Amino acid sequence: MTNKTVKIPESTAQRLSIYLRGLALLAENVTENVSSNELGEYAGVNPAQVRKDLAYFGQFGIRGQGYSVQELKSRIAGILGTDQAWKVALIGIGNLGKALAAYKGFDKQGFQIAAIFDTDEKKIGKPIRGINVQPMQELTKTVTDMDIRIAIIAIPAETAQHVADALVQAGILCILNFAPARISVPKHIKLRYVDLSTELESLSFYLTQIGRLNI
Amino acid sequence: MTNKTVKIPESTAQRLSIYLRGLALLAENVTENVSSNELGEYAGVNPAQVRKDLAYFGQFGIRGQGYSVQELKSRIAGILGTDQAWKVALIGIGNLGKALAAYKGFDKQGFQIAAIFDTDEKKIGKPIRGINVQPMQELTKTVTDMDIRIAIIAIPAETAQHVADALVQAGILCILNFAPARISVPKHIKLRYVDLSTELESLSFYLTQIGRLNI
Repeated sequence: MTNKTVKIPESTAQRLSIYLRGLALLAENVTENVSSNELGEYAGVNPAQVRKDLAYFGQFGIRGQGYSVQELKSRIAGILGTDQAWKVALIGIGNLGKALAAYKGFDKQGFQIAAIFDTDEKKIGKPIRGINVQPMQELTKTVTDMDIRIAIIAIPAETAQHVADALVQAGILCILNFAPARISVPKHIKLRYVDLSTELESLSFYLTQIGRLNI
Repeated sequence: MTNKTVKIPESTAQRLSIYLRGLALLAENVTENVSSNELGEYAGVNPAQVRKDLAYFGQFGIRGQGYSVQELKSRIAGILGTDQAWKVALIGIGNLGKALAAYKGFDKQGFQIAAIFDTDEKKIGKPIRGINVQPMQELTKTVTDMDIRIAIIAIPAETAQHVADALVQAGILCILNFAPARISVPKHIKLRYVDLSTELESLSFYLTQIGRLNI
């Protein structure tokens, strides 16, 4: 049985997210059972890690038969909250914001861009995929009225902290930050970075290391 | 002195990437010196960690005065390879691919989208920001001729593994994968994921945990 008071570590949650994707693939192919070996291979971790991660759900795999794909999928979705619909506020509708607004993966996972904000007078009032862009002054009212808890920041670095402060003020609890800037938020706010610069630098770092070490 | 045979851990490289951004900000503001305290505060790590990371460059901070912003900036850029220009191949020119092609941060850091590939007949031969989209059949020739080592994958999950195989075959050494799929590559290939699904799930996981734990 799931113990409702168990706190699942974030590293486990991230692997659950990958298992879930593998399970969705298996479900499409009408596979009934999956072993910790198979899930581990898909996620790039060893089977013992898979079993340890899934032990948070209690004992329900059957030795020698593995786990029921459907049952495991719905349990993980429940833990990750992807069995619910989440409204998301998107801040900034430049190139990246537009791409994010068009990204089909959000909807598929139950994340719905419900409100879009920008400071550009030319963009305000115009519809993006059926949603009228609002001025930042409307943030608190809209977030409260629509009960939005998640925001995506897709604006330049210079204004990121200012916008983050406004989001927290408005009652947002989770921020996914695409702006290439570190921001500070209170402890109860969940902040994640998608940092293209850092990712690219880790690639050039690798190429530079190869060159230096003459691998 | 920098020891040319020292292998710098990836976790350090990621922090160096963040320090570098902080140093660029300081350089813009004509700040001459920076302490490990200040850098640590910017990056969200403690000063001891900063000093440990920078120790890979040898002893050049001055006790009580900190580090020279310009010197540290150029040393880190050298280690991360951002003092060089890198050509990048972009695979897939859908919504996300277009946003990435338009992303100004790449150029700023010395990453130049030098070739674009797609399988869509309607897109092939047409220019995107001055670069004609090529068919996948041209991949090996173009990558070899242009000496490209880095590729960005921005295609649907189903074709990601197939494209990754073709990239490795063509001589690509680093892959930044935006496709929502796990892919397998040989050990000498550096693979990084930018996984929007996983990021969003970590947010809904947090909101679900709050609900379950009644924090």
